[in-house]
Amino acid sequence: MRNTKPSVKDLSKSILQGDTVALGRAITLIESKKPSDQKFADALLKKILTSTGKSLRIGITGSPGVGKSTFIEAFGKYLILCGKKIAVLAVDPSSAKTKGSILGDRTRMEELSKDANAFIRPTSSGNSLGGVADRTRETILLCEAAGYEIIIVETVGVGQSETTVRNMVDFFLLLQLAGAGDELQGIKKGIMEMADAIVITKADGENEKKAKLAQTEFQHALHLFQPATSGWTPKVLTTSAIQKKGISEVWKMIESFLDVANSTNAFQKNREQHKLLWFQENIQLLIKEKIAQSKKAAANIKALEKRISKGEILPARAAKEFIKKNW
Amino acid sequence: MRNTKPSVKDLSKSILQGDTVALGRAITLIESKKPSDQKFADALLKKILTSTGKSLRIGITGSPGVGKSTFIEAFGKYLILCGKKIAVLAVDPSSAKTKGSILGDRTRMEELSKDANAFIRPTSSGNSLGGVADRTRETILLCEAAGYEIIIVETVGVGQSETTVRNMVDFFLLLQLAGAGDELQGIKKGIMEMADAIVITKADGENEKKAKLAQTEFQHALHLFQPATSGWTPKVLTTSAIQKKGISEVWKMIESFLDVANSTNAFQKNREQHKLLWFQENIQLLIKEKIAQSKKAAANIKALEKRISKGEILPARAAKEFIKKNW
Repeated sequence: MRNTKPSVKDLSKSILQGDTVALGRAITLIESKKPSDQKFADALLKKILTSTGKSLRIGITGSPGVGKSTFIEAFGKYLILCGKKIAVLAVDPSSAKTKGSILGDRTRMEELSKDANAFIRPTSSGNSLGGVADRTRETILLCEAAGYEIIIVETVGVGQSETTVRNMVDFFLLLQLAGAGDELQGIKKGIMEMADAIVITKADGENEKKAKLAQTEFQHALHLFQPATSGWTPKVLTTSAIQKKGISEVWKMIESFLDVANSTNAFQKNREQHKLLWFQENIQLLIKEKIAQSKKAAANIKALEKRISKGEILPARAAKEFIKKNW
Repeated sequence: MRNTKPSVKDLSKSILQGDTVALGRAITLIESKKPSDQKFADALLKKILTSTGKSLRIGITGSPGVGKSTFIEAFGKYLILCGKKIAVLAVDPSSAKTKGSILGDRTRMEELSKDANAFIRPTSSGNSLGGVADRTRETILLCEAAGYEIIIVETVGVGQSETTVRNMVDFFLLLQLAGAGDELQGIKKGIMEMADAIVITKADGENEKKAKLAQTEFQHALHLFQPATSGWTPKVLTTSAIQKKGISEVWKMIESFLDVANSTNAFQKNREQHKLLWFQENIQLLIKEKIAQSKKAAANIKALEKRISKGEILPARAAKEFIKKNW
């Protein structure tokens, strides 16, 4: 199957049967910039659309060094023990520049990647974050069609990627290092308020006491924010991936989150919102693209920005001029 | 002058001379929806543009009951004592619905409103927040042209109005009530991280102790965020408008903010960003307007949203369809 191009019908059939080679191939097609591939991918997604949406989508973020892959490996293996099939996708908008570490996922999560019930796939960044977001959203759908019940979307927390991931998952988990007090500083703007839970990692050995202190502190700090999911009070847990402590508790917490979010209908409402947001975002992206593609429009924007900076024209007036000329 | 329509030249001249009747009239023209008034306002703004930008723009927000008008009255009177001319503008996107309390500004700030060196003007909301934002931005420019050295933009903190105001001021102040601990809860999402300073009001009598405790707590909480203005560590102060305590300290703090923001060039960079943001926002607003004005496009959006909700079409695909049909 690797060398001949299958039909949309055949490929979708294989995906629905849980064929990981077919799934990988479909993702590659989604990521391709060739118009013929994009057309194929569109048709494929249309074909599998009714078989999507049945997974639990979990977003996981945390700074480098927090132990994301170690946590995901331990958490993933626990879920598989519980009888689940899991997929791990990585969103890394920075990898285009840095050839990001996240691309090494398969080696990072060595045991998990060997498990037949786990599917691991980094989303190698192409151009824009908008593009990465689309591809990740579509990859989620493909994984769901292939029967994965839990989709973990991992992000390294660069720039806007958390917001992007937050808007495509049902549950958003922030990983933080153990160590009391000081580490509250330097948390990136707005990330804590997106979290449905904070998990303090590496809570073992000498770190255990610090982790407990940090737990109290984070719990207190979370009071500063409105809950990310209405009706759910964000929780703070501690884990040790090495000692395999706290992992089952994370899953139990997510299960109780699901109870709440389903009973209040927040789960369905969020999904609905995410879809409409995806639509609106894409309209705006396409409009921006149209403008960028037009040399005249792009030059016009630059010229107007220069005049604005110099104080020669009001921004509102400049916008009117732009629309008049380019719409 | 009230009954005959002056020329752009005459009106701008009067404004530049600090004539408050002319200033009030110009603001009314800016707020007008009549095309002829809008044209006049545009020409007027163009005329005074080079005389703008020299004020310090301070945004002040806080929940109802926090004592905003009492604080602004005390603060404003102090600034006038320091020899400044000040303007107070109120952004209240909710007033269209509620006939908002903020419209009573002139009675709320009774002493200030009688002072020849103070100009108080509520921005009665018309339609969209976008519109309010534009009118407030333009009113700031007019006040600057009229010689006001400090422009206070007040917002009641409904929905997105804080972000809107944050993006048009140099310094953003959050007012909070005294009382320890508990009141940290319920602060609206994302507001604390926008603040250059928090001022705890009504720190008098029995409240004084509580206010000191809250000060420590807020100072600690601010560590959770990156500073709103790069290079400046947000401060927490306590004031009593009744006892006239802490007011001069607020101004001293703002002066030291200016020292920092000028030396790092953050002041100019922020202003630059605000202007470009204004431009981009207006382009997007105008595009949305174009879409909304087209019955066909609006109906198309609705139909596509329905299909998205039903799971019949991918949001990304729907966006492409929309652009194809309507661009």
